[in-house]
Amino acid sequence: MKNVCVVGLGYVGLPTAILAAQNGVEVIGFDINKDRVAAVNRGNVDLTEPELKDRLEIVLKKKTFSAIDTLPEADYFVVAVPTPLSIHNSADVSYVFAAIDTICTKLKKGDVVIIESTIPVGTTDLCAQIIQEKTKLKVGEDVFVAHCPERVWPSRVFEELKKNERILGGITSACSEKAFIFYKTFVKGVMHLKSAKFAELLKLTENSAIDVSVALAHQVAVLAEELEFDPYEVIEIANKHPRVNILNPTCGVGGHCVAIDPWFLINSFPHKTLLFQSARFINDSRPQQVVNKVVDAVEQWCAEKNKDLCKVHILGLTYKPNVDDLRESPAMKVAELLFVRKNIALTITEPHAAKEKVELQFGSLVSLEAGINNADIVVGLVAHNFFKLINHDNYAEKTWIDCAGLRWNVPQVMRGKIQGQESAASL
Amino acid sequence: MKNVCVVGLGYVGLPTAILAAQNGVEVIGFDINKDRVAAVNRGNVDLTEPELKDRLEIVLKKKTFSAIDTLPEADYFVVAVPTPLSIHNSADVSYVFAAIDTICTKLKKGDVVIIESTIPVGTTDLCAQIIQEKTKLKVGEDVFVAHCPERVWPSRVFEELKKNERILGGITSACSEKAFIFYKTFVKGVMHLKSAKFAELLKLTENSAIDVSVALAHQVAVLAEELEFDPYEVIEIANKHPRVNILNPTCGVGGHCVAIDPWFLINSFPHKTLLFQSARFINDSRPQQVVNKVVDAVEQWCAEKNKDLCKVHILGLTYKPNVDDLRESPAMKVAELLFVRKNIALTITEPHAAKEKVELQFGSLVSLEAGINNADIVVGLVAHNFFKLINHDNYAEKTWIDCAGLRWNVPQVMRGKIQGQESAASL
Repeated sequence: MKNVCVVGLGYVGLPTAILAAQNGVEVIGFDINKDRVAAVNRGNVDLTEPELKDRLEIVLKKKTFSAIDTLPEADYFVVAVPTPLSIHNSADVSYVFAAIDTICTKLKKGDVVIIESTIPVGTTDLCAQIIQEKTKLKVGEDVFVAHCPERVWPSRVFEELKKNERILGGITSACSEKAFIFYKTFVKGVMHLKSAKFAELLKLTENSAIDVSVALAHQVAVLAEELEFDPYEVIEIANKHPRVNILNPTCGVGGHCVAIDPWFLINSFPHKTLLFQSARFINDSRPQQVVNKVVDAVEQWCAEKNKDLCKVHILGLTYKPNVDDLRESPAMKVAELLFVRKNIALTITEPHAAKEKVELQFGSLVSLEAGINNADIVVGLVAHNFFKLINHDNYAEKTWIDCAGLRWNVPQVMRGKIQGQESAASL
Repeated sequence: MKNVCVVGLGYVGLPTAILAAQNGVEVIGFDINKDRVAAVNRGNVDLTEPELKDRLEIVLKKKTFSAIDTLPEADYFVVAVPTPLSIHNSADVSYVFAAIDTICTKLKKGDVVIIESTIPVGTTDLCAQIIQEKTKLKVGEDVFVAHCPERVWPSRVFEELKKNERILGGITSACSEKAFIFYKTFVKGVMHLKSAKFAELLKLTENSAIDVSVALAHQVAVLAEELEFDPYEVIEIANKHPRVNILNPTCGVGGHCVAIDPWFLINSFPHKTLLFQSARFINDSRPQQVVNKVVDAVEQWCAEKNKDLCKVHILGLTYKPNVDDLRESPAMKVAELLFVRKNIALTITEPHAAKEKVELQFGSLVSLEAGINNADIVVGLVAHNFFKLINHDNYAEKTWIDCAGLRWNVPQVMRGKIQGQESAASL
């Protein structure tokens, strides 16, 4: 393995390229977006992943990594392009096929093509067929093709790229073994050499399983809310059962994995994915449920105060806590649906996402303190650590609607203890 | 609290009665079944719960516990009668109401009625209304009513009765506090004093959550089987993902809790339980899927060997590993469906369940070794520890169909390691 070309310099491609370059591999990063290539080469990227900037600076300085906007020759091509949803929730694999087409123009005997992008079951086989037809090189003998999905958690990408176990799914076992040569340069976790289909199924199964876990939390939340219990309290106490572990409900499921990958399985196996379909339905319904909850509270407030405008302050917009990513964010959906309502004056505190993006859509962001002080109703949507510092004693008169486990997170342990003690003491 | 009457001497009532009697409480166990009462008083019970017989003998000898078939007076009545499914999967709470009716004939000022049976949300309120109407005693002032569901795991009942946290759901907070007086005699876990409805919702939520977890395992198994992968291997490797934890699939969900309790929520909240409904459907479909798998293998075997009868040996019949309980067992369903097929000669090894019960239905049980030796196809249905001792090297020529994670349990760790080492060594 002399050099590696990583195709696609996004959330996964760029960190992978950098980490390999820090571990003795000569890496070129290819992206069709010229602005991004230029930015990467300046060491200036718009991803807020921790360690990313420092590590990028190091590999640029050492010249073990550089970015380019025309595909170079290489021994290894690692494809990390997006696979979003297209219409009707089917997988849009056009970026993967485009990457494969381009790679075919450079492919020579002995080369290895690794697809990291999440793809429907059978896609790697299709890619191998395309490669074989276009290049006349035999996959498994002349060239090698494998699917090696990533399993990283944004905000811990470098740590997880190193330590997570990894599936190397080759079209043949020789393909898996070629992939192993690349990943062993930086992966410390166990690597499982399996087939391409196995790796495809596995990656989709993992995110579908996470989606089901989240849907379970939302299903329980809906029942708790129906009976007017605090969903976080119901779940906290349910989790005291030795064999129950329900996640905290939020305002929905976002990001570019968990809300999308189950569809790849659902579309391939429509009659064998009832649970995944139900989970998608429940999680996709959650933002509207949160909106309904806020709207009900607003109407009650307006009626009680005899006013026709209620000041609602939202805490958080990103798709999960402590990241800057607004893509596919359910909190954004909630904000959009509240923003257009006549009887709501909406303000927002969002400490992580790019200020200009948010302000373009919703007007000025406000500080946490000013936002809460000025509001009639405060709605927690994202459990940023920043929000956990709120001292609720200072705002006892506010109406709080917690859809992120924010309020509960602080007093829950204390409350449990006090309750036990009180009871014991009073008897 | 002078004395306690436990109503219903089954899997939960009898251990609860015994444990209280071992902790300074004078307990009378009431059951309408005279044979059971007589058996209990002789120290001779048909439940195989560990420690049960020894503990029963102790409390009988000390005279802190005895059983009776007419309801006595008492300060505390603890109702632990069954709540099975009736037609259309609705909850049959007739035993609870019958118990409450009988208790009303003995109830006096200051008494406490605790319902441990699993019940639909709102049932405790109904019981309190009945009590108030029949006895003219005011609930919360003159008499006290609470729902205090158990969370125990058959085969670890005594340990879990002591250490598990517990919800005490009173009609009023005074009712919860009265319940606390009883449970503090033997419960070491934290006790949460909540409302009756909260306790009802919580218990049903817990078992529904477990049902969803199992359904997830079965959903993944179906997809893995569709693609001809070993479901246990797919799940084992998926669980290497830091945020994924899928259970091992089995041949279905049985017993008298997880397969039943979700229906109590589904019937009360038909439009807010999609995930629970999907889970029930998937788990109820599993035995037939297993049967189909075996039938396919039988037909293939018959075609290959040009025979019209295939000897199938089944490992396990109980509803879960290492218990004797056949009630609602999915393995029983599988056995029944295979037993009636013309081209299958069925034999069974079941080390825990009562021999006479099984033999009445299926003919003689056979020993593990004889069963496997004589079989053409061996089907694992229940992961009894007893079966994990099988040395598969001795039976390499057999066709194995593993629906309990039996075969996989032994070699999985080794296989993972060997695989990594092989790969590393070969490069």
